[in-house]
Formats: sequence, structure tokens, C-alpha cells
Amino acid sequence: MPDRYAYLGPEGTFTEAALRALRPDATDTARIPCEGVAAVFDAVRTGAVEGGVVPLENSVEGGVTSTIAELIGGEPLAITGETAVPVEFALFARPGVTLNDVKTVATHPHALAQCRGWLARHLPDAETHTVSSTAAAARAVSEPGASYDAAICAVIAGERYGLRALATGVGDRADAATRFIYLSRPGRPPAPTGADLTSVVAFIADDHPGALIEVLTQFAVRGVNLTRLESRPTGDKLGSYCFCIDAEGHVADARVGEALMGLRRVCRDVRFLGSYPRSGRATELDPPLSPRPATEADYAESERWLARIRSGGVD
Amino acid sequence: MPDRYAYLGPEGTFTEAALRALRPDATDTARIPCEGVAAVFDAVRTGAVEGGVVPLENSVEGGVTSTIAELIGGEPLAITGETAVPVEFALFARPGVTLNDVKTVATHPHALAQCRGWLARHLPDAETHTVSSTAAAARAVSEPGASYDAAICAVIAGERYGLRALATGVGDRADAATRFIYLSRPGRPPAPTGADLTSVVAFIADDHPGALIEVLTQFAVRGVNLTRLESRPTGDKLGSYCFCIDAEGHVADARVGEALMGLRRVCRDVRFLGSYPRSGRATELDPPLSPRPATEADYAESERWLARIRSGGVD
Amino acid sequence: MPDRYAYLGPEGTFTEAALRALRPDATDTARIPCEGVAAVFDAVRTGAVEGGVVPLENSVEGGVTSTIAELIGGEPLAITGETAVPVEFALFARPGVTLNDVKTVATHPHALAQCRGWLARHLPDAETHTVSSTAAAARAVSEPGASYDAAICAVIAGERYGLRALATGVGDRADAATRFIYLSRPGRPPAPTGADLTSVVAFIADDHPGALIEVLTQFAVRGVNLTRLESRPTGDKLGSYCFCIDAEGHVADARVGEALMGLRRVCRDVRFLGSYPRSGRATELDPPLSPRPATEADYAESERWLARIRSGGVD
Amino acid sequence: MPDRYAYLGPEGTFTEAALRALRPDATDTARIPCEGVAAVFDAVRTGAVEGGVVPLENSVEGGVTSTIAELIGGEPLAITGETAVPVEFALFARPGVTLNDVKTVATHPHALAQCRGWLARHLPDAETHTVSSTAAAARAVSEPGASYDAAICAVIAGERYGLRALATGVGDRADAATRFIYLSRPGRPPAPTGADLTSVVAFIADDHPGALIEVLTQFAVRGVNLTRLESRPTGDKLGSYCFCIDAEGHVADARVGEALMGLRRVCRDVRFLGSYPRSGRATELDPPLSPRPATEADYAESERWLARIRSGGVD
Repeated sequence: MPDRYAYLGPEGTFTEAALRALRPDATDTARIPCEGVAAVFDAVRTGAVEGGVVPLENSVEGGVTSTIAELIGGEPLAITGETAVPVEFALFARPGVTLNDVKTVATHPHALAQCRGWLARHLPDAETHTVSSTAAAARAVSEPGASYDAAICAVIAGERYGLRALATGVGDRADAATRFIYLSRPGRPPAPTGADLTSVVAFIADDHPGALIEVLTQFAVRGVNLTRLESRPTGDKLGSYCFCIDAEGHVADARVGEALMGLRRVCRDVRFLGSYPRSGRATELDPPLSPRPATEADYAESERWLARIRSGGVD
Repeated sequence: MPDRYAYLGPEGTFTEAALRALRPDATDTARIPCEGVAAVFDAVRTGAVEGGVVPLENSVEGGVTSTIAELIGGEPLAITGETAVPVEFALFARPGVTLNDVKTVATHPHALAQCRGWLARHLPDAETHTVSSTAAAARAVSEPGASYDAAICAVIAGERYGLRALATGVGDRADAATRFIYLSRPGRPPAPTGADLTSVVAFIADDHPGALIEVLTQFAVRGVNLTRLESRPTGDKLGSYCFCIDAEGHVADARVGEALMGLRRVCRDVRFLGSYPRSGRATELDPPLSPRPATEADYAESERWLARIRSGGVD
Repeated sequence: MPDRYAYLGPEGTFTEAALRALRPDATDTARIPCEGVAAVFDAVRTGAVEGGVVPLENSVEGGVTSTIAELIGGEPLAITGETAVPVEFALFARPGVTLNDVKTVATHPHALAQCRGWLARHLPDAETHTVSSTAAAARAVSEPGASYDAAICAVIAGERYGLRALATGVGDRADAATRFIYLSRPGRPPAPTGADLTSVVAFIADDHPGALIEVLTQFAVRGVNLTRLESRPTGDKLGSYCFCIDAEGHVADARVGEALMGLRRVCRDVRFLGSYPRSGRATELDPPLSPRPATEADYAESERWLARIRSGGVD
Repeated sequence: MPDRYAYLGPEGTFTEAALRALRPDATDTARIPCEGVAAVFDAVRTGAVEGGVVPLENSVEGGVTSTIAELIGGEPLAITGETAVPVEFALFARPGVTLNDVKTVATHPHALAQCRGWLARHLPDAETHTVSSTAAAARAVSEPGASYDAAICAVIAGERYGLRALATGVGDRADAATRFIYLSRPGRPPAPTGADLTSVVAFIADDHPGALIEVLTQFAVRGVNLTRLESRPTGDKLGSYCFCIDAEGHVADARVGEALMGLRRVCRDVRFLGSYPRSGRATELDPPLSPRPATEADYAESERWLARIRSGGVD
């Protein structure tokens, strides 16, 4: 039986689009929609599927709470891939319905928040209803005797449920995007590609500003750039946070390995989430690094030098 | 007409409990439930009410996205108070219904996530449905011909809708709490009390780790402790964040004032959200500060010393 | 009576050359040579002279111990000027003496150290003797029945004592230089010129690495560049140091004033030595500052902003 | 032939006392006095002696320029030991001479600086002369037809030259001390003892404050305490410094090794001077470290953890 992959359903979500990008060779029947993020994690954990895809963060809404909660506190899975999908909302209705006919619109609350401007301009009098996903909105609109006239959803969803697009690009931010991660059971990370990310969760020993500076310094002192830092409550009490960190580079890189060891020593706990190829969005987040960061060759050279001086050679 | 106060409704939410704690003298008719966080902000902005209360962060779920979005990007309001409310979930049903009768349970998705363990042990076969708030769940259960047998909600909500408690303390974490803020129209901050917090949003000039260290150092170098640091997307693109910061002390304090000025100089932008009395939870978040931070007296002394040396006096 | 100025004598020292550069209008009788650095300080302290010039540091030998000791521990004087003088050594002898005649050479130990290469090449067999200054060597050579055939000294000294140059540029480093300071009795610093230095001595509260980083951070966080950092023993015990710091800018500058106040708060003690125009050697020591440091205008703007938010204005 | 040892002579210097402490079994003929610090270094380099002892720093005067210059720029030698000797000055004269007879006193300039107070009180009218070492002063006083009545020197020197003590403890600081180092030809450092020091010279890539903070951070981030930091001119130009650093621990320690590798990567150049047992003065310089620094065990554990996560194990 070919490999199967779980994703946050129903069919037609942006997550399905992400899975198609990450596993382009998967057949239609290999993609298994799950209800809820936790169900995707569980399907991977139990071995029911080979891997799974869930949203991690959205450029407008921020981190996806349920995904982060599973990564921080659930039985460990490894992140072995990522991709970013542009979030392009469209207004879909059943064939024959025109924009003038639309009195009620269904969508997900986040989508509603991101399309408020367009709705105010084009459908100022329409009633809005929120449902559990944009794909669910499309499905609901497609059903006989539907309670809603139209759905704001992804194109993939509108088409899946046999609807027609009344308008595309209805989101207020043209460049909104969501970042998705691919989950695997724990194992050796994928080989370094030269453009990788490493994700960890750091539980700081004491909640004081110096402690966070100390954690960030573990990366900065080794020239490791961070691309994401997100605080999350540990759940213990108000004011107790851990930090989800994405850093450039692979755990197999000397600089990243050394930074993680340093993190391990100064933190109460560190959870390694994975090293994986960085998706194409690439360098737009990369500031010019100053000064020149140490390369793998620099690390190797400094290690040889240390061996030399330890054994009495002249440096 | 006496002052009126908006809060995130419907009646019976934890937010109502927070408003009662923050404005204990307000009459029942002075408390105005609003649908959605944005509506509370708007009610304060337009002057329809004197102030408003919304949730800011939860010890289990983290920051409340809609509140933070309004604080970061909406027309400015000032935070002038805060309180923390223990989140104690109870299972409520109509009079006469017993635990054995419960086949369907309604609640808010976050509440469901926090009560999963209890449900698995006590109602393993019950179907669960999520609605827009725990109070809405209670209201739905109370209605004639209700679709649900029971609601997980706050005690205040169950009682408000004439229900009976089948079980209390059904949350998986006994010490869960939510922190609420009181919003006012912009104006001079409340006077320092000696135990205050100051909230700001920092938009970092460049997204590199050194930049965040630099921001944190602006506080650390002046001995200002941080009690909350939360990254949020700016909405511009993936990987572009701003930082919501709560710091100990009042903007009128020398050390806080100087730190904010420093922040202003190194950041692309800083939004001051307010200085306000810290709620009773007090010192549990305070690590012993090392070394002794400079006091107001130290600041005053160093300012006199500077004046002396600038004018040629011997130090 | 016109102003008189003390300097580290005897006549013909590099210090005399520095005084001539700093007070070009002083007449010959206004320049008072003193024996020893302490004597120069005392002449200024007692009011016997208007000001005094002493060497502070040499590009080859480092800080001048006796000058630094007086600055750190003596009765306070203010640094109100500085200049750097190229250290160009020459070999001088009485008229009629040729290089071949030179069997014994006198000079100051530091000068000897800096001319060793030249001597080895050109006078490999000459005996060397060390005396208290290069000018004293020239004077000794000029005396009837002198014990030495030649002196290594400044051109100014050789000419002063009626000698003839046998060779110039005999120092091993062509670009050696000594930096001299001008001392005044305490008083209001000279007005800012836009290119100033500020000198202080910082006595760190505890001798641990974090403490020094904390001190340096007080400057770095305000974008104040340091041009000199020199540790000196406090004299109390081995391992107890204070730090002599030269920073760019004037105590009247907002950024320097704030940094000094911060230093005052984190240090056990700070001694302000003065703010004064920087000498012409100018920007060669200035790295490109990254990021753009805050200007006076930025400081003024941030102060206005703080006043606004403190009084309730919208930022 | 037994091992021989060079030291900064003449006989009777504090350096001889240091050599006696460091090599207590050496016979009298095994101790070779040299004229000048450079001569000691050269005797070790050429193999004429097994090792050598020179002063490194004095608690009153600071670093010994000539020693530091040889360490920084000369052909490399290794520091393999250290000791600190109390600097106790005494006034010695020929037998039969009383305090009242003393009209002229000879000593080294540094000793003169450290005994000024005693001389002012007890011999206010005596003339003072400076010579090349305190031992040379004692020797000069002992010679027939001596130009000086008394010498300020170490007890060891007065006794060596057959003099009698007129007064002891004539130094103005009772606890003055000088630190001496033992030099060997390059080779494997002595084995770690658990209380070691490591000395290096760091040539910073750019002369800016951030660069020095970066260097210090390489130690701080790994919990390595510094016991000495001394800037020295590189000799290239005014304002160009290198930093002589003594750090706690041994190059064979994981934390020190990693810090040195980090230093190597961020500096223009690093010269390793040696790891050696710390002398008895021990912990007086050690502040309580906060937070608990990582131990060798912590380093080993973090390395095992890294190996685990690199190979796909669950942390």
C-alpha cells in the first residue's frame, strides 16, 4: 500500500494545498483529511499515516495555537518539511447565484477578519456567519437547502464543492500567507541541504529578562540567525512562558549544534522539533549578517586549532 | 447618567467576572455585553461607554489574538487597569438532568481543549459541540428545545441562565487563569502606585536576532524587569513580527521613562499602551533581581551628579 | 603676568613639543619644565601654573603609569585638551663627532626599546646606557666631559642642547606616536565642538565578567563609541582593576550624559576626567557604526515623546 | 647537569623569591639571574635554561610592559606556572649606619613611588636616587665608596649584599603584591588540577565597543570567569589595542576549549599563552557565579544529547 498522508481537513483547505506542494506525487486517495489539528498529529503518531501537514503560523493571525500546543506538549513528532502557501480568498456560490443575490456569507472567523474591508465595500448589507473552516463553509453552501448564499474560501475548496467564483482576491492583504509544516515520526533528520531551518522549544530556567537575552545570545554569539521567536504560555500559570524558536541552519551544522548544546545547558528544558529544508520564500527574512558569521570551515579550523594548542603545538 | 462599561459578552462570561472585579460599584445595568472584542473597543472609542474589559491572555491558550490585533493596529486606546480571573469550568444542565442523561455537551473550543481529560473520564461517550463562548453554550442549553444536554461554562454563566451544576472543577488544570485589561480613551495614565505595569508594542527596525537583544537590553541595562513578551505578526509578511511587552514600573518612573526613550530610538516604531496598577497576583512572577536595580533615588542622584560635572563641579 | 604652563621636562622632550602644539602662543618663558609627571600635576593644582601637559599613552608602550595613577587617585584635575605627537627618534652627538666615533649611546629605556633594530644594524658594537628621559640624554651628551658619545632623542632636544644629528628616523616603527593631555583645575568643560572625547575612570562594583560587559553595554546601548579602554590596578590587591575609558562625544551631549548616569548607577564609583576637543587624528579609529546611532535630535525627539505619553497624549 | 632556571636579576630581586617558591628544589647555582626581562625569555627560547621567571603584574603599578610585550609579540613561550609574592619593602644600609645617618636613598622608581609616604614621614630631607632594580640599589649600597647611604629593597636583597635592616614595612600599601609567571618552551600544557588559569591574547577584528563585548560574551555565555583583562597597544598606531585575558579553567576543560574556539572565530588573531595551576591566592577574586555555570558534566551531557538528536533519537 502506498504511503498515506494526513492533513487538516476537510477537503479544500489551504492545508490540502500545502500537502499537494509537499508531496506532489501523492494520489488523491493518499491524502487523508482529519478533523482538527490533534487528529493529524495522532494519525502520524499511531502510524496510520506516513506523515501529516498542519498550519503553523499565519502572516496575519500569528501562530496556530493548537499546532503549537501539540508541538510543545504532545508526544514528540519531528518536523521534516515546511512550505508557505499564499492565502488567497475568493467568494464562491452555487451556479446561477450572482453577487446581488448574496444576503448571507459563511466562512471561518480568521478569514472573516481578513476580508472585512472587501465585504464592507461590496456586500455591506450581507449577514456573516462563522463556521469551523473555510472549506466547511464551501461545503455548507454546496449542500441542498443551504443556509448560506456564499462562502469565502480557497479556490481549491470552491472548486471541490462544485461552486462558482463570484469574486477572487477578496482578502484585505494581497500578500497574506500561511506556513505549514510536515510532521513525521521521530527519526534521523533529513540531510542538510544548505538552506535549512531548525525548530526548538526553549523552556527558560527563570522568567527574567536576562534569561531570554541569555538564550538569544546562545544563537547570536555563534552567528546563528533566528527567523521566528514566539512566546507561548507553558500552561502552568500566567507569566510562565516558553519560546518557540526557528533558527537558520541544520542540527548537523557545527554552529547550530553548538548553539543547541549551549541552549540545553542554560535552559530548564529544550525540545528539539526538527531540522528540515527551508521552503522557497528564502532570503527575504535574512538581514545582512554583520559581522561575517563563522562558516563550517571556520568551525572546523577552530577545532583543529584547539586540538593543536591542547597538545602543545604552537598556534 | 452613571458611567457604563462594555465587556466581551454574552452575560456570564469570565470577562463579566473581570469587570465586576475591576468596577465593583457598577450596577447591573451599567455593564454592557458586546459581541466580539472589536465591539468592546469600538464602544470605548465612540464614547458610548466609559471603559471596557477584554481578555488579553490565558495561562493555557496564550494571547487573545483579536484583543492584541486591536491593541497593535486599531485606533489607540489606553490600558488603565488589569485583573486576573481564575478559569474554573463547571458542567451545567437544566434542572432535573443528571450526569447520566448527558449525551451532548456544548462549550467554547478553548474550554473544550482545557476539559478534555475530565470528559474522557466522566463522559467518554458524550458528543461535544463548540459554540462562540462558554456563556453562549449555557444560554443555548437553557433554551426550550435545546440541542445540547449540558454546557461547560463559568459558574457565573450557569447561574445566569438558570442551570444547575452537575460538576465543578472540570478543567484539567486547577490553576488556569485569564488576564483581563481595562480600556479607556487616551489620557494621562493613572498615578503610579508603586506596583505598576507598563505595556508597549515594539516594532523592531530589522528582523535580526541582534535587534531583539538590543530591545531587551534597553530594559535590562536600566534594571527594568519584563513580565510578558509576546511576538505577533505585523501582518506584512511571514517572518515580520512586532513584540508586545509588559514591563514592571510606571511610565512616570525614571527607569521606565528612560527605557522607553531608548526603545523609541532603536525601534522603527513604538506604541505606548498604558501604565496601570498591577493586579494582586503580584510578586510571584518576580525573580530576585540581580544585581540590585537602580531605584528612583539612584536615578535622581545620578542626574544631580551629571548636572554637577556638566557645570564643572568636582564629582 | 601672562599664563604659564607646566610640562614634563627637561626642555626638549616630546611633551614640550605637545605643549607648543596645544598653546602655540605661549612664550618661551611661559613653558615651565617639571621633573616628573607628579610635579606637573602639583603645579596645576597649586595654581603655580595655568595648565600642564603630560603624556597619557604611547602607541608602542601603552599607558603612562604615573599619569594614569595621578588621574585615578590624585586630587582631581580636569582634562581639557589633547594632542598626539609623532615619536621620531634621532641620533645626536656633539659637533665633529661622526657615526664611526660612537662607542656609547644614552637614551630613555622606552626609546632604547623602540630603536633596538636600528642600533643592531648601524651600531652593533656600541654600549647603551639608560637615563631618565631622552632630553636628559641629550643634555648629558652636551656637557663637557660627557660620559656618552651620542643620545637618542627628539630633534627638538638635540637642537636645544647644541648637538648635531648623525641620523634621523632611527625608531623601528615609523608611525609611533604619543598622546598628550592638557590638564586644568576643575571647572566647566570646554564647549562642545562636535568632535570631542570624554574620559572617565570606572570602578566596577564586582570583579566579574558580566560587570564589565554591563559597563560597556551602558555605552553601546546608547550608541556611544569607545576609543580607549585600559584596565589599571586599583592598588588594593592583585585582580582588582578599574577601567580608564575614552568615549566619543561630550558630557553635554544627551547620549553621553545618559551613558555616564547609567555608569554611575552600576559602578561602585565613577571619576569624570573631562570632555575636550578631539585632536586631528580624527576618524581613523572610528568604525562605521551599525546601526545608525541616535543623534542629539533623536534624543530630543524621544524626550518630547516621553513627555507626551506621560501626560496622556497619543503617541 | 641538573635543570637551570633564568630569572630577572640581579640576585635578591622579588623575582628570585618567586623562582624559589616555584622551584623550591633548585640549588643556588641552578638559578641564573638575567639582566632584563627579554634576556630571561631568550634564555628559555635558546634552551640555555629549562624555564624562566618574570614579573607579570603588580597590584600597584599594573602590568609589566616588557613582559607583556614579549608575550604578545616575541617568539612564543608557554606560561606553565604562576605565583604571587607579597612586595615588602625594607630600608637597608651598611652595618653601623643608623637612620639618622641616611642622607641619600637609592631604589627602583616603582619602589620609590610605593614608599613615598614612609620617606616623607621618616626621612623628609633625604635625597632619593633611582636605579635599575631594588636589588641593584642594595648592591650599590654594599660597594666600597658607595654613592648612597641606604637602599629600599626586598629583605632577600638586603641580606644577600650583607646589609642591615634599618626599617621594614616601609611600603605605603601593606598588601602590595606582584604576580610572577613561569615560562617554558612550547609543549603540552601541564595537566588540569581543578584550579587552573588560562592566558590568551586577543587581537580584536575591529576596534569598536561591540567587538570587545562580543569577545567578553564568548566567555560569559559559557560561564567562564575572567580574572584579568588588560588592554595593550598593538604598536601599530594610537587606538589599536589587543587584550591580555586570564580566564578561570584549563584549555582541556570543555567550557574553556569552546570559548577559545569562539574567540578564534570572532577575533583577527588569538595567541594562546598557556594553561597552568592557579597559585594559592585562590578564590578571593571569585565572585559568586550567577547563575550556576555549566560543569564538565553538563558539557558532556549536552554533547550526548546533541548526538542523540542528530541521529534521530527522542530527546
